[in-house]
Amino acid sequence: MELLVSCPRSRLFLWGACPLNLGLSMEGRATVSTPAALPYYVAFSQLLGLTLVAMTGAWLGLYRGGIAWESDLQFNVHPLCMAIGLIFLQGDALLVYRVFRNEAKRTTKVLHGMLHVSALTIALVGLVAVFDYHRKKGYADLYSLHSWCGILVFVLYFVQWLVGFSFFLFPGASFSLRSRYRASHIFFGATIFILSVGTALLGLKEALLFKLGRAKYSLFEPEGVLANVLGLLLACFGGVVLYILTRPDWKRPSQAEEQALSMDFKTLTEGDSPGSQ
Amino acid sequence: MELLVSCPRSRLFLWGACPLNLGLSMEGRATVSTPAALPYYVAFSQLLGLTLVAMTGAWLGLYRGGIAWESDLQFNVHPLCMAIGLIFLQGDALLVYRVFRNEAKRTTKVLHGMLHVSALTIALVGLVAVFDYHRKKGYADLYSLHSWCGILVFVLYFVQWLVGFSFFLFPGASFSLRSRYRASHIFFGATIFILSVGTALLGLKEALLFKLGRAKYSLFEPEGVLANVLGLLLACFGGVVLYILTRPDWKRPSQAEEQALSMDFKTLTEGDSPGSQ
Repeated sequence: MELLVSCPRSRLFLWGACPLNLGLSMEGRATVSTPAALPYYVAFSQLLGLTLVAMTGAWLGLYRGGIAWESDLQFNVHPLCMAIGLIFLQGDALLVYRVFRNEAKRTTKVLHGMLHVSALTIALVGLVAVFDYHRKKGYADLYSLHSWCGILVFVLYFVQWLVGFSFFLFPGASFSLRSRYRASHIFFGATIFILSVGTALLGLKEALLFKLGRAKYSLFEPEGVLANVLGLLLACFGGVVLYILTRPDWKRPSQAEEQALSMDFKTLTEGDSPGSQ
Repeated sequence: MELLVSCPRSRLFLWGACPLNLGLSMEGRATVSTPAALPYYVAFSQLLGLTLVAMTGAWLGLYRGGIAWESDLQFNVHPLCMAIGLIFLQGDALLVYRVFRNEAKRTTKVLHGMLHVSALTIALVGLVAVFDYHRKKGYADLYSLHSWCGILVFVLYFVQWLVGFSFFLFPGASFSLRSRYRASHIFFGATIFILSVGTALLGLKEALLFKLGRAKYSLFEPEGVLANVLGLLLACFGGVVLYILTRPDWKRPSQAEEQALSMDFKTLTEGDSPGSQ
């Protein structure tokens, strides 16, 4: 049972005026239909994400001796944790509002926040691993562009999470305050994700050049070629996530029940609805 | 003389219904007021862009012997051309529609296209310089992640320009075809710009590590620190350009004359106006 209601991109809320497909579920709740191409793009992003994590593992296993905490292999914990946390899980956290279109807003928010917490925690393990490894080896810390960008990403990501939590999950923030902050939250979220991908590319390049140098790298050594392909995969994953995130007609529309229950006409005409992220 | 007319984010064009400030110029043409903070952000982006170009020159002059075509210094033409063309000019080309809000649409389009042509041409000189330098030195080509990403950027940028020209400057494309392609053009434009910044960071890192290696780099050599700061400047320039580009209320609104003369109500209710980019 389908009926046409309300345009999410217009500030004027006119019942029956715009091509957003809403249906009714078996329980009588309004459901939003999923754009036809969206599941394919999401599946492709997951294929890319899982492949890049697997390829990071393969690179470390085949050419770097594998992973362990209490040995020279401790360094290798760093790239694996970052690939899982700061790339794959952070990217997936950004996609939550595009994938879960009919679940309750609060459930989706909690999932979004929890995925970011997991990403941050895993990234923290990766960060501890590299500092601990440097300490044991007597190497200097924070001298490279990769490390400067990495610390910047980590601080920004943590601040973004704290501010996001205060505005969207903590009950104190008002509806209009959330509305005003939403655009900044989305922009900075996407920017931190892009910076994470860039930092990963710098780290990959650094790890390659420290070991291979120009001489071996320019001979198309298998490790160099594999790492280059991994770098392209990282960039592609970033690109596909951003495409899904920024396509305007793929945004999660306001749920009819939220619109009916929690908004008045004044709010709809003066600001975007917080139902859509 | 100011009057309130039409909402640029609504698909419904209602004279007098939405808070977009339009005034009348001395010649009686409708003019759009500039958002208060926009000029400061644009000025900041230009300060960052010019500083990063100057700092690239300073790096090459202070630590790499300067620039020349017919000598070992030919390589240095590459980073300078890429900083000017693929970073600064490409970034500025993306901002044209945010800066020139009252000029005729066609003039703004031509400027946007011309800036991209200049960026591509300067980048081509940089590309020729590095291939020619490799040939003379007997170095291998296209073995590194930087070079793979660089070629990808160059091909995508050229294709994007050709397709953009065909749709927006060539007179054949229909109004609705332009409307449908616009979102993709903007997304891919921004993505190619991000990829250009990422590729520049990889190149900077490569140039540093080829010369300094881990040993000198980790001692905080002045060249390493300067290059790290240059890397952060590149990332900041990219971030500020993207912020200006993506902020919804800073988009160039449709000019009233275009709306009145070239659109019918059906187009306005079924698709975005091509007047706003």
